[in-house]
Amino acid sequence: MLTLYTWSTPNGRKPLILLEELEVAYNVQPVDIGKGEQFAADFLAISPNNKIPALVDDEAEGGPLTLFESGAVLTYLAEKHGRFLDAAGPERYRALAWLHWQIGGTGPMFGQLGFFALRAEEKLPMAIKHFTDEADRLLGVMDRHLAGNTYLAGEHYTIADIACYAWTLSATTYLKEVLTDSMRDKPSVQRWLDTISERPAVQRGMRTLQT
Amino acid sequence: MLTLYTWSTPNGRKPLILLEELEVAYNVQPVDIGKGEQFAADFLAISPNNKIPALVDDEAEGGPLTLFESGAVLTYLAEKHGRFLDAAGPERYRALAWLHWQIGGTGPMFGQLGFFALRAEEKLPMAIKHFTDEADRLLGVMDRHLAGNTYLAGEHYTIADIACYAWTLSATTYLKEVLTDSMRDKPSVQRWLDTISERPAVQRGMRTLQT
Ligand SMILES: N[C@@H](CCC(=O)N[C@@H](CS)C(=O)NCC(=O)O)C(=O)O
Ligand SMILES: N[C@@H](CCC(=O)N[C@@H](CS)C(=O)NCC(=O)O)C(=O)O
Repeated sequence: MLTLYTWSTPNGRKPLILLEELEVAYNVQPVDIGKGEQFAADFLAISPNNKIPALVDDEAEGGPLTLFESGAVLTYLAEKHGRFLDAAGPERYRALAWLHWQIGGTGPMFGQLGFFALRAEEKLPMAIKHFTDEADRLLGVMDRHLAGNTYLAGEHYTIADIACYAWTLSATTYLKEVLTDSMRDKPSVQRWLDTISERPAVQRGMRTLQT
Repeated sequence: MLTLYTWSTPNGRKPLILLEELEVAYNVQPVDIGKGEQFAADFLAISPNNKIPALVDDEAEGGPLTLFESGAVLTYLAEKHGRFLDAAGPERYRALAWLHWQIGGTGPMFGQLGFFALRAEEKLPMAIKHFTDEADRLLGVMDRHLAGNTYLAGEHYTIADIACYAWTLSATTYLKEVLTDSMRDKPSVQRWLDTISERPAVQRGMRTLQT
C-alpha cells in the first residue's frame, strides 16, 4: 500500500493530485506542520529534512521505499505507473526541466515571499520587494512559455504541470495581497490555471485535508 | 555534439563535473552572467528562465534537445550514459530525493544568504539571520544523513553528490564569512566534501572557466 505523509499546503497537494490522477489506492497520514509534527522522530526517519510531503511504498520493486521531496515522489509515482511523464525522448526532459524549475523557483521564492510579506513580524520593505520582483519574474517566464504551449512540457499534461499548479494558484489565493498586480498581465498563466482547475482529479486533490 | 552553456558558479559547475566524470566530448559556451549575457535572445531561447546551466544535444534520441535547469541536465546525461543514477530501484529514488533537496534547498537558500549577507547594499540583520539559520539547518540535515551513509543515496556516488558538492563547498569558500561557525560541527559533511574533492573529474570540473 502507498502511504502519503502530507498537509494542506502547496507542496503537500502535488502528490495528492497525482495520486488522484492515477486512480490508485493510498492512505493519507496528516502531518500538522502548524503543530510541529514534522519534527517527530518517526517522521524524521522518513523525511530527514522535516518537511512534507513524503511517501512510503511497502510494495515497491526491490523492497519497501521511503521517499521525501515532492519532485522525487512525483517522478517515482509517474515512473511506477508509466503515466504523466514519458519514459524517454524530448518531452520527458522538458517535463523534468519545468519540474526542477518549480522546485528551485516558485517553491522557495513564493515561500520566502510569504514569510517576509505575510508571516514575519518585522516587515522589511527591501526584502519584500526583492521576493515580489522575483515572483513576478518567475510568473513572467511561465507566461511567455505558456503563450506558445498548452502545457509546460508541450502538448501533454505532465507532472511538471501538477508541480507548478498549487504554487502558481497561491498567487491568486494565499499570496494575492502581494501578487494580484503581477497576475494582471499573465493571461497565459491564468488560462493554464483555469484548464487545470477543471480536472476532477485536481479538484479532489485540492479538497483532501481541507480545513 | 553536446554544448554546455555555463559559468563559474556553483550551479554552473554541476554539469561540468558530470561531463568530466562521464569522459564524453563536449563544448563549453561561457555565458557571463556578470555582464548580463543570460538575457540575450538566443540564450533565452534555450534557457527561458535566464539562468545557467543549459545544455544542447544535437544528437539526442528523437531530435535535437535543448535543456535548462541543472537537475534536469544531470538526470538527462546520467540516463543517456547509464551512469551515476540507477535505472530503477530504491537507490535511484534516494538519489532523486537528494537531488531535489539540493535544487529546492541549498541552491536557493545559500543563494539568498549570499544576496542578503554579501551582495545587498542594505544589510538587514533579520534576513541575514533567517538565511544563516536555514543554511545551518540544511547542513545539519546533510551531516546527520552522511554520518550513516558514505554518499547521499547510500553506498554509491551519484548525481545527488555532484549536485550537492559545489553549493556545500561554498560554505567553506564564497560563504565562509557567514558559515564557518556552522561548518565547525559538521564533521560528516566535511568528510564527504574531502572525499569528493579528491576525484580527478571533480578537480577538472572545478577548474574549467576559472577566473
Ligand atoms: N522542496 C520540498 C519543499 C517541501 C516544503 O517546503 N514543505 C513545507 C510545507 S509546504 C513543510 O513541510 N514545512 C515544514 C517545515 O519546514 O518545518 C518539496 O518540494 O517537497
Ligand atoms: N535551479 C537552477 C538555478 C540556476 C541558477 O541560479 N543560475 C545562476 C548562476 S549560479 C544564474 O544563472 N543567474 C543569473 C540570473 O539569475 O540572472 C538550476 O539548478 O539550474
